[in-house]
Amino acid sequence: MLSSMKINVAILGGSGYTALECIQILLKHPHANIVAVTSRQGEKEATPLVSDLHPRLAHRIALRCQPFDVAHLKEQAVQVAFGCLPHGISMATIPQLIAAGIKVIDLSADYRLRDANVYAQWYKHEHSDQGNLANAVYGLPEVYGSKLKNASLIANPGCYPQTGILGLAPLVANKLIDLNNIVIDSKSGVSGGGRSPSLTFHYPECNESVAAYGVGTHRHTPEIEQVLSDIAQAPVNVIFTPHLIPMDRGIFSTIYASPRGKVDEKELMALYRKHFEKTPFVRVVDRLPATKDTVNTNFLDITVRVVRDRIIVLACEDNLIRGASGVAVQNFNHMFGFEETLGQL
Amino acid sequence: MLSSMKINVAILGGSGYTALECIQILLKHPHANIVAVTSRQGEKEATPLVSDLHPRLAHRIALRCQPFDVAHLKEQAVQVAFGCLPHGISMATIPQLIAAGIKVIDLSADYRLRDANVYAQWYKHEHSDQGNLANAVYGLPEVYGSKLKNASLIANPGCYPQTGILGLAPLVANKLIDLNNIVIDSKSGVSGGGRSPSLTFHYPECNESVAAYGVGTHRHTPEIEQVLSDIAQAPVNVIFTPHLIPMDRGIFSTIYASPRGKVDEKELMALYRKHFEKTPFVRVVDRLPATKDTVNTNFLDITVRVVRDRIIVLACEDNLIRGASGVAVQNFNHMFGFEETLGQL
Amino acid sequence: MLSSMKINVAILGGSGYTALECIQILLKHPHANIVAVTSRQGEKEATPLVSDLHPRLAHRIALRCQPFDVAHLKEQAVQVAFGCLPHGISMATIPQLIAAGIKVIDLSADYRLRDANVYAQWYKHEHSDQGNLANAVYGLPEVYGSKLKNASLIANPGCYPQTGILGLAPLVANKLIDLNNIVIDSKSGVSGGGRSPSLTFHYPECNESVAAYGVGTHRHTPEIEQVLSDIAQAPVNVIFTPHLIPMDRGIFSTIYASPRGKVDEKELMALYRKHFEKTPFVRVVDRLPATKDTVNTNFLDITVRVVRDRIIVLACEDNLIRGASGVAVQNFNHMFGFEETLGQL
Amino acid sequence: MLSSMKINVAILGGSGYTALECIQILLKHPHANIVAVTSRQGEKEATPLVSDLHPRLAHRIALRCQPFDVAHLKEQAVQVAFGCLPHGISMATIPQLIAAGIKVIDLSADYRLRDANVYAQWYKHEHSDQGNLANAVYGLPEVYGSKLKNASLIANPGCYPQTGILGLAPLVANKLIDLNNIVIDSKSGVSGGGRSPSLTFHYPECNESVAAYGVGTHRHTPEIEQVLSDIAQAPVNVIFTPHLIPMDRGIFSTIYASPRGKVDEKELMALYRKHFEKTPFVRVVDRLPATKDTVNTNFLDITVRVVRDRIIVLACEDNLIRGASGVAVQNFNHMFGFEETLGQL
Repeated sequence: MLSSMKINVAILGGSGYTALECIQILLKHPHANIVAVTSRQGEKEATPLVSDLHPRLAHRIALRCQPFDVAHLKEQAVQVAFGCLPHGISMATIPQLIAAGIKVIDLSADYRLRDANVYAQWYKHEHSDQGNLANAVYGLPEVYGSKLKNASLIANPGCYPQTGILGLAPLVANKLIDLNNIVIDSKSGVSGGGRSPSLTFHYPECNESVAAYGVGTHRHTPEIEQVLSDIAQAPVNVIFTPHLIPMDRGIFSTIYASPRGKVDEKELMALYRKHFEKTPFVRVVDRLPATKDTVNTNFLDITVRVVRDRIIVLACEDNLIRGASGVAVQNFNHMFGFEETLGQL
Repeated sequence: MLSSMKINVAILGGSGYTALECIQILLKHPHANIVAVTSRQGEKEATPLVSDLHPRLAHRIALRCQPFDVAHLKEQAVQVAFGCLPHGISMATIPQLIAAGIKVIDLSADYRLRDANVYAQWYKHEHSDQGNLANAVYGLPEVYGSKLKNASLIANPGCYPQTGILGLAPLVANKLIDLNNIVIDSKSGVSGGGRSPSLTFHYPECNESVAAYGVGTHRHTPEIEQVLSDIAQAPVNVIFTPHLIPMDRGIFSTIYASPRGKVDEKELMALYRKHFEKTPFVRVVDRLPATKDTVNTNFLDITVRVVRDRIIVLACEDNLIRGASGVAVQNFNHMFGFEETLGQL
Repeated sequence: MLSSMKINVAILGGSGYTALECIQILLKHPHANIVAVTSRQGEKEATPLVSDLHPRLAHRIALRCQPFDVAHLKEQAVQVAFGCLPHGISMATIPQLIAAGIKVIDLSADYRLRDANVYAQWYKHEHSDQGNLANAVYGLPEVYGSKLKNASLIANPGCYPQTGILGLAPLVANKLIDLNNIVIDSKSGVSGGGRSPSLTFHYPECNESVAAYGVGTHRHTPEIEQVLSDIAQAPVNVIFTPHLIPMDRGIFSTIYASPRGKVDEKELMALYRKHFEKTPFVRVVDRLPATKDTVNTNFLDITVRVVRDRIIVLACEDNLIRGASGVAVQNFNHMFGFEETLGQL
Repeated sequence: MLSSMKINVAILGGSGYTALECIQILLKHPHANIVAVTSRQGEKEATPLVSDLHPRLAHRIALRCQPFDVAHLKEQAVQVAFGCLPHGISMATIPQLIAAGIKVIDLSADYRLRDANVYAQWYKHEHSDQGNLANAVYGLPEVYGSKLKNASLIANPGCYPQTGILGLAPLVANKLIDLNNIVIDSKSGVSGGGRSPSLTFHYPECNESVAAYGVGTHRHTPEIEQVLSDIAQAPVNVIFTPHLIPMDRGIFSTIYASPRGKVDEKELMALYRKHFEKTPFVRVVDRLPATKDTVNTNFLDITVRVVRDRIIVLACEDNLIRGASGVAVQNFNHMFGFEETLGQL
């Protein structure tokens, strides 16, 4: 790959938080060239600047929003689109891109569950693009890294699932735990809820408060199970409970697993270090991690403890970077053959 | 007043924060009996419990929301209504209450400015109830206390104005400062923006950020000037700049005034103590005050400093209690001849 | 009990947060008369006002701090002391009070674990007052209410344990769950760490972050197990993981239990309602609770869900009120035969 | 300058927040090579890793802390030191570095005030290094840019002063305002107080609260006046009031100035745009700025309003980046002839 090579990139759904993070990371990426940002705001007569939607970007990007139009994106020589659209809308637009030869890294949930029936069950509507679903690669580089190169459609993973999957991967891969007695108790900052105002995310409602939500119904459950089952090569069931925490960003998952035999904390730590020795964005740490140490980075920090013969894994990340836009750029690097850490380390 | 006397109270516009605070204070008031809570939610077929709107109130109040209907309120023998409706809507409903002989403590801005032209200028619509406007009493007990008893309509003061007015009252009353070189720089928690979700108050937007808003245009400006001009018996002009602070509640005002002659900090402190010696909810403090010490109370804390021949007054309060619902109950006590502090100290 | 009766109360260790909360609640209690507040600050030559330690209390309490001196407390006719001292120091002072006939409600951990060996194991020092330990009553009114009346020494319960114990009590009492497969994942606001500054609680360190701490080693573990074992009349083991959340106050516990047989969510909810029908401070709620709805109250809110054949209990409270000073006043009411809710509802 | 050139850098006082930010920025700087981080922690027998002090830096920097030792720094071929030591200690160490030919960018206040008497008056101790003081350049590139190249000692500016100075520079330079009627009301996040725990910055004390501090006594006052007087070529006096805001980082300054004649908002905005057209890190914006849009960047955002014949300037920044470590790297670039924005844009 020539060091001067630039990939033309479009951001779809430019008004949200993951779009903002993608833009910020890509602006520092030596081989990315953002040529288009689409948004419904771009359909207005007076199309706003991208920096009107995101004042942080003032003096950083001169583009105006544009409506979503594949022909126009082709004219702009877009090679890859980062899809920052909501699920449902995402699968209504992506087929056109794929058909036009534009690669897609989709940050929505639409192409993560390979079984369209499971999708319909959890998302409460049918999957309308099963053709591309069959070709999508789940974009968790630490698990599916070899499949990402040259993929046309990468389903970027959910924020919570990454902590659950990577936190449990070494245990599951080595058949150390009961696959049906796993609890993932996760705590997320409010940006995980997106940028659309609602009472739940109204400052005086969620500030100075903590609460669980989606108990037993959160859509990241089948996503976690699908990938862990791949790793285990056996069905995995998890109890997953997300909580809303009064902070902007960060996810902390406390994972409880039952070992199938005697386990030793030091040996587990060594196993984890070994498992992640070649994955630059996973840090196995001795101390108990804190979300703050990962915020604004693509790192996912993990440690393991043994308490009363139970294994407790503690894993955390920035939900917008590692949990969304950072791993998306990591996937971009895999897709185009760049160094995995480029633009982020 | 018999100690067993109970006043029947209605809360209008029960879904907002000031309504919640009114209910909470009145539930502990020995002479208040909440008999009705109106809300547009009460117009639904399945009218929600008040505690459905405000889960804090579970097991505390058994009432259901009801639609606004003066005849019904009369049947319920309501003697006074706490108006927690938005401005504009407030002056569309209050005339009916007054006509029906129900007293009103109106927490909206509709009856605060005695000049309907000034109202129209700042609120951008005509005043539709100038009849009652002429009879409304501005409900700042520390300034207009003697007029509150037996008032039919009390215009409860704005949150910011109380800090500005009471912070400057001793200086203005004693003609110590230039009435045209006053700066009030105020900082407010987010609950001051109400309970309707919007991008401005969306958690990830306003958390971890501070910004000014309404620079030169905030509607509390004429309210502050009206009352200070009353006290001064001369026109007062202020520059008032509000800021949004990432916290639930609290207003802190830093007030800069230019003395007309030589001033001494100790003498000013003595003047302030004297001025407020009979007002139980104003605390003149030696230390620099902090909003936290006033939160969940009806206290307004004040101190004065002289810096480089300029007077700096620091005044703070809980914007929902002292700034709205607490002073409303204080007004209720004045209206019905109860001890001013009843229910709050 | 005569309605005019006043109990003379002392607060020991007046500079901390639980002392502040005790004072605030007792100031509104019709039968409490705070006559003394002790503090090491009281040993200074110029003893500060209690309101110097806690500016919130300005104009609310006129007392000065005084050094701890049992003879002086007796002269002041103190009948009961609220002990807000750290563990270790608490058991060094309480014997003198008991010997002098002063009842004690101890908010420290010193008298909670009835087995001095368990105490020594978890607190890493010997118990120096096993005599009084034998007579102490664990002050959880919903479990040990009948023993509180006329107790001389009440060991006020820990903040976390109340959510864990009351959250599991109906399940354990009815032998519905496996007593050895319980996970309590708790999230606490920062005030739970007390008022002594340290890097852990330094604002820029813990703000905008979440982390687990004391994994496998937190001292509330044996306290939870002792009481649940009492209820179960069989040994109970729990995995308890506390987390620090960037908010002032509130504890949220997510409790995972394995039913011994088939369970139904509606039946469990009915069981919980029945179990707590006579305990005014426990609210069994349909919705998923949030700490914010309990803040500044003595309520503990609970709900139950069944997810994939696992029972999830969600319980929350204000860690300083229900978790400490509120339940202490509730215990005070039991001790002296007052209505349980007096001063708080 | 060769593109492959690397400058060997030392960080002095590595445990604080400004050191962390310097390290993070320099790790991404193409021409910086961090070879040493000194700290009192480095004096321990088991010297910690820099990433033990700052867990964020795990897997990012392999250095261990080392004690401060100029000879050792010379052996390590250090060319420039970023001084992140407290004032007082800074001027006790810097003379050795200068004598050894190591350039210094000092983030403390020790070399900012060119008059040692003014320093003694505000900092309450004598200046011990008046020799180097005479040669120090105040490191505000937008004002003193031409003097920075080849400077041996740069006094990095204070966090607050930058907003006040740059906010007023166009007005003062053009003699548009009364130089003796300026009020700067500033709001800062808590990280501005440093990393040493104290009650003021204890989470439950400063969270959910706002308060003024250092009223009339804050040491940034003479610093602001010195630079504005340089620009005005006449004495400038300011009233400067800082406030503590419950957020990690960000400074927002609301500046009130009295125009000497008639002013027009649009003309002032044009003047500001012109004034800052060549300074890449100052963004003159139309909207009211918010600190959040500058956080984690070296931008300082400014706008101007005219309200009732008074000029109000609103200026904000990240106090740790633009207010300290970001401008330090900007100064580093000037010092060594690199592009001003290198490493940060």
